[in-house]
Amino acid sequence: MATHKLLLLPGDGIGIEVMAEVKRVIDWLDTRGVASFAIEEDLVGGAAYDSCGQPISEEAMAKAFAADAILLGAVGGPKWANVPYECRPEAGLLRLRKDLQLFANLRPAVCYPALADASSLKRELVEGLDVLIVRELTGGVYFGEPKTISDLSDGQKRAIDTQVYESYEIERIARVAFELARTRRNKVVSTEKHNVMKTGVLWKQVVSEVHGAEFDDVVLEHQLADSCGMQLVRAPKQFDVIVTDNLFGDILSDVAAMLTGSLGMLPSASLGAVEEVSGRRRALYEPVHGAAPDIAGKGLANPIAMVGSLAMALRYSFGLIEAADRVEAAIAGVLAGGFRTNDIFSEGMTRVGTSGMGDALLAEL
Amino acid sequence: MATHKLLLLPGDGIGIEVMAEVKRVIDWLDTRGVASFAIEEDLVGGAAYDSCGQPISEEAMAKAFAADAILLGAVGGPKWANVPYECRPEAGLLRLRKDLQLFANLRPAVCYPALADASSLKRELVEGLDVLIVRELTGGVYFGEPKTISDLSDGQKRAIDTQVYESYEIERIARVAFELARTRRNKVVSTEKHNVMKTGVLWKQVVSEVHGAEFDDVVLEHQLADSCGMQLVRAPKQFDVIVTDNLFGDILSDVAAMLTGSLGMLPSASLGAVEEVSGRRRALYEPVHGAAPDIAGKGLANPIAMVGSLAMALRYSFGLIEAADRVEAAIAGVLAGGFRTNDIFSEGMTRVGTSGMGDALLAEL
Ligand SMILES: CC(C)[C@H](C(=O)O)[C@@H](O)C(=O)O
Ligand SMILES: CC(C)[C@H](C(=O)O)[C@@H](O)C(=O)O
Repeated sequence: MATHKLLLLPGDGIGIEVMAEVKRVIDWLDTRGVASFAIEEDLVGGAAYDSCGQPISEEAMAKAFAADAILLGAVGGPKWANVPYECRPEAGLLRLRKDLQLFANLRPAVCYPALADASSLKRELVEGLDVLIVRELTGGVYFGEPKTISDLSDGQKRAIDTQVYESYEIERIARVAFELARTRRNKVVSTEKHNVMKTGVLWKQVVSEVHGAEFDDVVLEHQLADSCGMQLVRAPKQFDVIVTDNLFGDILSDVAAMLTGSLGMLPSASLGAVEEVSGRRRALYEPVHGAAPDIAGKGLANPIAMVGSLAMALRYSFGLIEAADRVEAAIAGVLAGGFRTNDIFSEGMTRVGTSGMGDALLAEL
Repeated sequence: MATHKLLLLPGDGIGIEVMAEVKRVIDWLDTRGVASFAIEEDLVGGAAYDSCGQPISEEAMAKAFAADAILLGAVGGPKWANVPYECRPEAGLLRLRKDLQLFANLRPAVCYPALADASSLKRELVEGLDVLIVRELTGGVYFGEPKTISDLSDGQKRAIDTQVYESYEIERIARVAFELARTRRNKVVSTEKHNVMKTGVLWKQVVSEVHGAEFDDVVLEHQLADSCGMQLVRAPKQFDVIVTDNLFGDILSDVAAMLTGSLGMLPSASLGAVEEVSGRRRALYEPVHGAAPDIAGKGLANPIAMVGSLAMALRYSFGLIEAADRVEAAIAGVLAGGFRTNDIFSEGMTRVGTSGMGDALLAEL
């Protein structure tokens, strides 16, 4: 049996707690011989800054390059509000994304039937919701230069951010979206602001070209980002796959995640290109939720998004489909069994903490 | 009685139909002696392009500079999808905003009690909702340079947009937000992405400084734009005033508007600075909804947002508080009377078209 090199980066806040639970699942899979892992662990985010003055060390980056897949918890927190910009916790995550060229961020927004009532939206609007946001992750305003703050006269300052997209960046993310749509309901909505942004003009044009040349069996629709935000609230079930840039993807995927009522449940995958020779594809898996400093350290966090992220790694990085199914079935099982952390608690259910949810998951496996 | 110079720019799509109804209200106010108007009218958007090859003519711009207030319907539509970028319908609106320096865009997201059930959200989450989004409207990525698409080798292209903010632009919009909060529930949430954008870093810093120096009686909270999107869905009533940049404001205000279930009902104001000498303040009023090409020309559009925009003009530009109250009371009256256009129709109500709603409004006045 192949041994899979897995790097664990718990990060900050509840990242640490949810990573502890996923480790138990990994151990279980390893001990039962379902899969074989070589585990490394390291720091990222504020935790890394506290230890070495950088939001990720060179050593951790080397481990990331060597790994078959990375599981990341979450980064950030008020403790690091005043560290230099280059050293803020998020910079560790952004460096991983950029240096490993993890350009395709897959964010499923799925409404678990058992949790439809936890949504802000009326049940009929979200029941059965299954949207996949495909967010470009290594370009756009996150990384474009110049990105500066400069002093003008009179104590005035000028800040600049630059959004840059080249055709190839749009082409490759469009392909990912169309390919995924083919395995789903065959529909892609591409989202930008071509009415005010030149990157939006290029985005729309390139997505249309890739569609016409390679994917004209897939239904393609273009929506402006503001309309898309509206439509997500009005009628989210109209969507199958949404493909969008780094910044719009950040906001729209958070809105979509919140719609489901299952925020603490949602995993994500950030994938690189398939390497021509090795056939390898770099990948990082992380919950959609953040470090949640308000509940960190209290044992209240929901570990399901983190465990679901492991399931995505089993499926997409290791080809362990059965193991992935098994972990996902365990998640469905604990929900059916009525176990609920605070974020998804409702009347009549069994309230558990982070490790209680971990116990329940192991019992289901 | 002072005569108020009002410029009407119906624009495209349903803009034309809703403007026709607001004209009837203006006539009514004028005929009854409630207010006195000198009305000018001109083209903007696709309509202007079709007539003069520009999305707004120099003549119309001159009228805009001469007006005390502008009412604008909506711009855009698929008909102009392939006109040159500089000539697209939106460019007319953007030029008005920029040249008149209408930097403060006020977008109330109010849930009319009679319409709470039209929201996607559960009634208890939106009943009584009253959020005011204060969006910066003349800076950011909408206007920053460079803003280009260039050819690279191999048929590849590179597109660039630039987000620029200077301290003074953030200071003045922050002041507007804090001042308005004082007339409301005294709370401001400032929204940016300081964790990835330098303009976000400056935004947060300047808003905090203005707060500390001039408005420390107002409660100020900072939220990242992605979190703010989530929070709008999760618990919108936590918000009083949200202050944010041009691009985030575009998306978040559309999400907020859609939450209310009253999209066709929501007016907006875009205000310039108060001029030192004349005490005048340039202003443009327009519905939050767009040109809605799918229903344009069918007599189905809801004119209430347009009529509400007139009420805002009466209040903020002309100081005609009683007239503004009267128009707003008429809006409340037709809703209480059960009149509903398609967008807000529900079982048991009286379905009306655009002019039917206009009739009902006049009857209430
Ligand atoms: C932590 C932060 C840098 C990050 C982002 O803005 O991309 C987060 O919000 C996310 O969506 O993964
Ligand atoms: C029409 C368009 C240019 C405009 C914008 O993006 O600002 C619209 O969406 C708005 O919100 O007023």
